Amino acid sequence: MSTTMSNGPADGPGNGPAVSRWEFDAMFERVRTWGRWEPAERGAWNRVGADHVRRAAALVRSGTVVPLGRPWDTTSGPDNRKPALHYMSDLGDVEAPEPSTHKDFVGADYHGKGISHLDALSHVAYRGRLYGGGAARELVGAAGARFGSVAALGPLVTRGVLLDLPAVQGRAWLEPGQAVHAGDVAAAEEALGVEIAEGDAVLLRTGRFRRRRELGPWDADAACAGFHVDAVPLLAERGIALLGGDGDSDVRPSPVEGVHSPVHTLAVAAMGVPLLDNLDVEELAAACAGTDRYDFLLLVSPLNIPGGTGSPVNPVAVL
Amino acid sequence: MSTTMSNGPADGPGNGPAVSRWEFDAMFERVRTWGRWEPAERGAWNRVGADHVRRAAALVRSGTVVPLGRPWDTTSGPDNRKPALHYMSDLGDVEAPEPSTHKDFVGADYHGKGISHLDALSHVAYRGRLYGGGAARELVGAAGARFGSVAALGPLVTRGVLLDLPAVQGRAWLEPGQAVHAGDVAAAEEALGVEIAEGDAVLLRTGRFRRRRELGPWDADAACAGFHVDAVPLLAERGIALLGGDGDSDVRPSPVEGVHSPVHTLAVAAMGVPLLDNLDVEELAAACAGTDRYDFLLLVSPLNIPGGTGSPVNPVAVL
Amino acid sequence: MSTTMSNGPADGPGNGPAVSRWEFDAMFERVRTWGRWEPAERGAWNRVGADHVRRAAALVRSGTVVPLGRPWDTTSGPDNRKPALHYMSDLGDVEAPEPSTHKDFVGADYHGKGISHLDALSHVAYRGRLYGGGAARELVGAAGARFGSVAALGPLVTRGVLLDLPAVQGRAWLEPGQAVHAGDVAAAEEALGVEIAEGDAVLLRTGRFRRRRELGPWDADAACAGFHVDAVPLLAERGIALLGGDGDSDVRPSPVEGVHSPVHTLAVAAMGVPLLDNLDVEELAAACAGTDRYDFLLLVSPLNIPGGTGSPVNPVAVL
Amino acid sequence: MSTTMSNGPADGPGNGPAVSRWEFDAMFERVRTWGRWEPAERGAWNRVGADHVRRAAALVRSGTVVPLGRPWDTTSGPDNRKPALHYMSDLGDVEAPEPSTHKDFVGADYHGKGISHLDALSHVAYRGRLYGGGAARELVGAAGARFGSVAALGPLVTRGVLLDLPAVQGRAWLEPGQAVHAGDVAAAEEALGVEIAEGDAVLLRTGRFRRRRELGPWDADAACAGFHVDAVPLLAERGIALLGGDGDSDVRPSPVEGVHSPVHTLAVAAMGVPLLDNLDVEELAAACAGTDRYDFLLLVSPLNIPGGTGSPVNPVAVL
Repeated sequence: MSTTMSNGPADGPGNGPAVSRWEFDAMFERVRTWGRWEPAERGAWNRVGADHVRRAAALVRSGTVVPLGRPWDTTSGPDNRKPALHYMSDLGDVEAPEPSTHKDFVGADYHGKGISHLDALSHVAYRGRLYGGGAARELVGAAGARFGSVAALGPLVTRGVLLDLPAVQGRAWLEPGQAVHAGDVAAAEEALGVEIAEGDAVLLRTGRFRRRRELGPWDADAACAGFHVDAVPLLAERGIALLGGDGDSDVRPSPVEGVHSPVHTLAVAAMGVPLLDNLDVEELAAACAGTDRYDFLLLVSPLNIPGGTGSPVNPVAVL
Repeated sequence: MSTTMSNGPADGPGNGPAVSRWEFDAMFERVRTWGRWEPAERGAWNRVGADHVRRAAALVRSGTVVPLGRPWDTTSGPDNRKPALHYMSDLGDVEAPEPSTHKDFVGADYHGKGISHLDALSHVAYRGRLYGGGAARELVGAAGARFGSVAALGPLVTRGVLLDLPAVQGRAWLEPGQAVHAGDVAAAEEALGVEIAEGDAVLLRTGRFRRRRELGPWDADAACAGFHVDAVPLLAERGIALLGGDGDSDVRPSPVEGVHSPVHTLAVAAMGVPLLDNLDVEELAAACAGTDRYDFLLLVSPLNIPGGTGSPVNPVAVL
Repeated sequence: MSTTMSNGPADGPGNGPAVSRWEFDAMFERVRTWGRWEPAERGAWNRVGADHVRRAAALVRSGTVVPLGRPWDTTSGPDNRKPALHYMSDLGDVEAPEPSTHKDFVGADYHGKGISHLDALSHVAYRGRLYGGGAARELVGAAGARFGSVAALGPLVTRGVLLDLPAVQGRAWLEPGQAVHAGDVAAAEEALGVEIAEGDAVLLRTGRFRRRRELGPWDADAACAGFHVDAVPLLAERGIALLGGDGDSDVRPSPVEGVHSPVHTLAVAAMGVPLLDNLDVEELAAACAGTDRYDFLLLVSPLNIPGGTGSPVNPVAVL
Repeated sequence: MSTTMSNGPADGPGNGPAVSRWEFDAMFERVRTWGRWEPAERGAWNRVGADHVRRAAALVRSGTVVPLGRPWDTTSGPDNRKPALHYMSDLGDVEAPEPSTHKDFVGADYHGKGISHLDALSHVAYRGRLYGGGAARELVGAAGARFGSVAALGPLVTRGVLLDLPAVQGRAWLEPGQAVHAGDVAAAEEALGVEIAEGDAVLLRTGRFRRRRELGPWDADAACAGFHVDAVPLLAERGIALLGGDGDSDVRPSPVEGVHSPVHTLAVAAMGVPLLDNLDVEELAAACAGTDRYDFLLLVSPLNIPGGTGSPVNPVAVL
């Protein structure tokens, strides 16, 4: 893998090639796993059995603990349209001492581009159907999701694999709009010396947060690097349990006609694979590069929200 | 350890013996670790080095994953005075399909008795001073804590030890107001075959949530089982990194004159030990009993909230 | 009107007589005004034209201003299950001085028994239909109400009439569960020397908040004084534009088989009459008694919330 | 008053002339009214007695009711950095029918440029002192303000006067950064045929929301039209009770050295005059122009928030 980096724009073909709705629907059918597992609402999480957990724990070598959650971002901006809330509810002057106590309120409409979060299976419906085929309108209401909630998922402990694309391509980051294809995934596996296996959590680094720190925030709904749908069948074949990274997995603009988030659609609604969005993987990338190992113990522990469509999270990699 | 259980009231001495303010202050001095670590605001979390992490990972045997976070409780009641918020912000009818997406807002003023959460070092001040001696009034303001925030802690990966007191005492639960003393801790270690060591996270089971399920909620501020302060010097001697359980560690009413939360005060403000409150450890207790092992890999990953005094969490035990 | 008061329980027949679903549906048809006004979503508010506003302004005699909004209640309890939120977001230490500024966040899921609020027409549907006949499921979604929102209502300036039932009956308050019937309304008009006219806002005093101050809060969902449905046809005949008071207008328990809030249903869904719930009318009652006049200028100015089903409010009476 | 309008940039001197801190402090002393009224925390609101209320009510001629509150703005942007919250908590599928009910949560950190709101006296401190001279740090804490809260103000019913500067100057709007001086106020009174009197609420129209609708939002913290401090002594002399408009009263950038909001400081902290920020007065301006009368009955009814530093509001003008 190259160690020379350039900040220049991607010289590749951007977010293409374009995919027709017909092709997309065929791909949806191909990767669909409806009916494969019990409980269905845990989806591909069911792939991770006790054996996987034991093997993942055995990956710990150095004992380095790397958090992947972005700071709770209370400032609105082009990539944080619904800023998180954080208010102090006691500054030692509300409840009587001793001791005096400090307390705070936190809140977030966490889906979007600003907050590190997990998408549960109820987050996405395609043609009105959630993963497994149930009608979204019947299964999700003002009280939350009756199928596919984050509480049904619970925590995930498994092997994580980092696909550090900028490292592989000798860049500081992928440019917004640059697609990651099946071939890029395979090339990354080879260059990084890691192979995606059943039950793995795959994390994609596009270098988004390095770029943000150097160049400032941009509208990540309009343009961000991510997977092209042509990479999804490979991930499906490998049997991943979780997908995520520093973007939201989808390259934007979407290459698929009439589908704004096709990787979300395939992963969540067809494959039952939860997603991790907006992780800061810069420190993880440095740690992996430092040990030249791109797999590790990954722990994701969403809040136990009955009916929740996901959760803000702070995933942890242990190397 | 007895397997016969009784639901009868504790026949012991309740929350006593009473402790004078003078005695308490002497105890505070005795267990105080100010100035011992860098960075100071990580407190006893500094005890957990890479070696501890590796040894904790090596505790994984069966690969059983047990979440400890209570369901996000949006219903007010005697033990949930500030109910958590959960609102759906998109039911597939706000953002245009395809796909349609479901989104939600979560919020909580999480300190209190209803929500599983972590107390960071900025949560508690005694005589106006935070852990390390800084003046609370200068260090904590409307923008949050400048010392001892949960973001300074980050995730914890260490060995967890469950002190299942009802199991040891052959009861279904400890009655509200029943104190756990140093002798009870020692007896539990012996009965459960586990020894608390440096860097450990100690979790106390009082059976609170079993009692709640069987008898309904009660005002846990007025009466709950927990540690008497006389147990703290032993825990300090062992060098624990984290303390928690199904209550909030303090027996209530407080046995200490003029101090409503003395174990909070000693643990957080004197020893730099974060606390885990309101964990549901019933499933963990069953898992430990089933394998007759009371130590495990424990993972606590608070949200990365700059200035936060803690975080709602869903800790995970891996057996 | 009597000036001797007793605190004794109502000696009347409580919340009865019982009303069958069939009778209720007939009553619904009788008072229904669907199709009568444009814009339909302002409902009976359309009755209040410029003439009414002028006549209401002319009611001002003493210039006494009486607010009717309860204090924003952040404490959960049997009659405040979803406590309001109030957090300080700046204590002069966030934004740089000079000047220093103090700021705060307020929030509320305001429907219920604790917060003074207005119910817009989208708040209530009967047999799946909003006022005017539209299907609730089509007209109200996660983005709010497309028909009958509080923003469509806007402010109301009209003549207010206080029906001070405890004053009429020589009691300190009506007991929880005591119904106010058509005959009681007519008797109150006569005793108080006031007649309900077209376009009026009718406010019912049951003495709830005097009772609450003297005896403490109780579960007002389970039992509260309010109108029996038999009083509604009289109010409909008079052509009221707004109905409210210190309860939520409905006597509870409901006397109508299978309908938990029959007055809400008739007023909002059949008649297009918005409701004002949980007003503190104690000071208003004293002011009216002091001048022996029970009509006044009433001003209700809900927040301008597009899609909102109502709004927290602080209505004002000017005598 | 001219009816020809130009959209061109102001040809005047922008936000100047510059004012030194020394000059500002002298002005603060000159307009200061500390100690003049009881209760002090109602400040200049005390000027509005029953006589004022009666005279204000007598201003009603046509019976036209004009709301002044902007739509609750949940979209973040350059002039709405802390978007308001609005979530549906029941869509007829949470509480059991009949009837079915729709409910919602509203919330806002309402100070700023996006939400129509009232500033109570506790909102602003200068040199650490609130109106009346009390120390801000002692009087405002996490539980709110113990002096100068919005609950202490209560509702205001008084005569309102609209200063429609763009109409006077024959423009569609004042450009961001254009100051309104004492001479402009006097000229507006003459051109509009209205004189500001004791106890009045003065509303300034700069045309902000017409400009916003035509040109889109801009950063109103960086540049907005408003009063230069040299206009304040005139307003003080007239004895106003309330000041507000479509901006936040202050011209920005501030012309005063080291004081970011000098009109806020003089009005609130020196004179005890609450402020109304971000009102949409376009419809009011049209109504006033249509009747050629620029005074009216004004009603402001803030939520009754104990300890609140202000409130979101929807003020109402009745012509």
